[in-house]
Amino acid sequence: MKIAIYGYGNIARGVESAVKQNEDITLYGVFTRRDPETVQTVSGAKVYPASDILSHKGNFDVLIVCGGSATDLPVLSPMLARNFNIVDSFDTHPKIPQFFASVDDAANAAGTLAVISGGWDPGLFSLNRLYSSAVLPDGKDYTFWGRGVSQGHSDAIRHVEGVADARQYTVPIDEAVNAVRSGSCPELRTSEKHRRECYVVLKDGADPEKVESAIKNMPDYFADYDTTVNFISAEDLKKNHSGLPHGGFVIRSGRTGFEHENCHTIEYSLKLDSNPEFTGSVLVALARAADRMSKNGETGCRTIFDIPPAFLSPLSPEEQRAKFL
Amino acid sequence: MKIAIYGYGNIARGVESAVKQNEDITLYGVFTRRDPETVQTVSGAKVYPASDILSHKGNFDVLIVCGGSATDLPVLSPMLARNFNIVDSFDTHPKIPQFFASVDDAANAAGTLAVISGGWDPGLFSLNRLYSSAVLPDGKDYTFWGRGVSQGHSDAIRHVEGVADARQYTVPIDEAVNAVRSGSCPELRTSEKHRRECYVVLKDGADPEKVESAIKNMPDYFADYDTTVNFISAEDLKKNHSGLPHGGFVIRSGRTGFEHENCHTIEYSLKLDSNPEFTGSVLVALARAADRMSKNGETGCRTIFDIPPAFLSPLSPEEQRAKFL
Repeated sequence: MKIAIYGYGNIARGVESAVKQNEDITLYGVFTRRDPETVQTVSGAKVYPASDILSHKGNFDVLIVCGGSATDLPVLSPMLARNFNIVDSFDTHPKIPQFFASVDDAANAAGTLAVISGGWDPGLFSLNRLYSSAVLPDGKDYTFWGRGVSQGHSDAIRHVEGVADARQYTVPIDEAVNAVRSGSCPELRTSEKHRRECYVVLKDGADPEKVESAIKNMPDYFADYDTTVNFISAEDLKKNHSGLPHGGFVIRSGRTGFEHENCHTIEYSLKLDSNPEFTGSVLVALARAADRMSKNGETGCRTIFDIPPAFLSPLSPEEQRAKFL
Repeated sequence: MKIAIYGYGNIARGVESAVKQNEDITLYGVFTRRDPETVQTVSGAKVYPASDILSHKGNFDVLIVCGGSATDLPVLSPMLARNFNIVDSFDTHPKIPQFFASVDDAANAAGTLAVISGGWDPGLFSLNRLYSSAVLPDGKDYTFWGRGVSQGHSDAIRHVEGVADARQYTVPIDEAVNAVRSGSCPELRTSEKHRRECYVVLKDGADPEKVESAIKNMPDYFADYDTTVNFISAEDLKKNHSGLPHGGFVIRSGRTGFEHENCHTIEYSLKLDSNPEFTGSVLVALARAADRMSKNGETGCRTIFDIPPAFLSPLSPEEQRAKFL
């Protein structure tokens, strides 16, 4: 099968590198809204102007739409689903229902197949929340994120006066993790589960005390959290904090038995050196599934919840049963 | 929906207790090959003779077949699939392909729907091996079992001369687990991943040295493993080793990127107080899915690989997206 990529940022590059690991998939090209002459792909894939995309209809099976969830995808995904099978990584959790509806309308009208909200959260983490709660109805689940870079929080720090650059790590609090793993089902707010570690490069002449206070008291982002601020040099930031690691875990603990006295813990955890490359790898597996569903005659919007796991694998059902079951 | 249970052992009791946690599911009754008068169910569910089961056709939606994989299920599952939608926990991994084929033939001919090999391994562990390898094709996966009771190994010890009773725990070796978690992708045999902890009650007059040597040198079961033998009293065994805890983890580590320099680790772990109750809980969620697939007009044999995750949950797709995605 052939895929194409719309947009060319970190996640698109993750998709591009994932394609090279999947022998059954080739990359048709990248569509960009920038001047194609200014975009050089890592793999050497061809770059086309986004405005010409309709003239490429029929040349590839699935289009992976790489864009931001705030403003790009709400417009792009329904628009592109009118002509192509698409996969995206829309991740604004509270807006998923309305986003789903608009993509579903477009895909059903056009007879295309769309898979939205792929990645790891939403995505693989969501899947584990669903499976675990189906198996242990009398239980409670917890999601911890990190240790990893939060782009939103890093950006928030960069807007503080006196800050030249910054990187923020979200870090799960060990005591909270251990309490959850013990099966004691504690009540925990997000701020009781995570602390925030900030690495900040100051502008010349900036007052570190003022900057630290501005960060620590920023509502929503930091004020409720145990926040530490470390001032470092621009060289140090570049050398030691330029990657985009992330991860986290989904834990459900629940009870069974007539006395409900037996406790069980299901834990799913990810430790990722590169958030965008891992996300891109999930999107490519979902593109394979989208192509299969489309070729089976299905249309409309889907999430990872609706897809038989077998469709994500390049192996035949017989091979899957022999190898994985 | 209504389910029924065929056979009444540990897993059947696990299913029985799981039904009480799922409001959308009721238990029609238990079918036994023993004299029904001698079987008292924990929940008070009715007990019927297995020989009469055809006269109950149409009274329930899915039959959960609880029996041993060695001799019971290879006969029972294809036979019962000729008249009922079934779910089972067939777990002899190398024989799954032929078992699948025989159940598939029976279910297709009868227009019924069968889900085989449910539970956690095969089952949830299998699912994680499949998803993880689809997402990280350039990687390697590892399954560790334990700390938990292996019934097969406990039985093997009970057959040693001089042994009155025994319990064997399979225990993952920490060093091996840590090597795998580090992403170093070591080559490890099963015996390099697990050690075996035995608790043995001697018969009067038995020679502990002889018993220990007989256990430690037993081929296949213990000879290749780091095995420890602890002699304890019958009271101690009953008091401290009467549960059936189990668990384990599936870890896949893989690399991405054009230089394949970024490493990712996906880990799925279970810590179960009661292996049969957890297995029963998985089987009940699969029964819900079997009922849905059957009502959608599907027939034949399925495994957890073929089932859209959404079908396992009692919630509507809209609720699932709002709550879990």
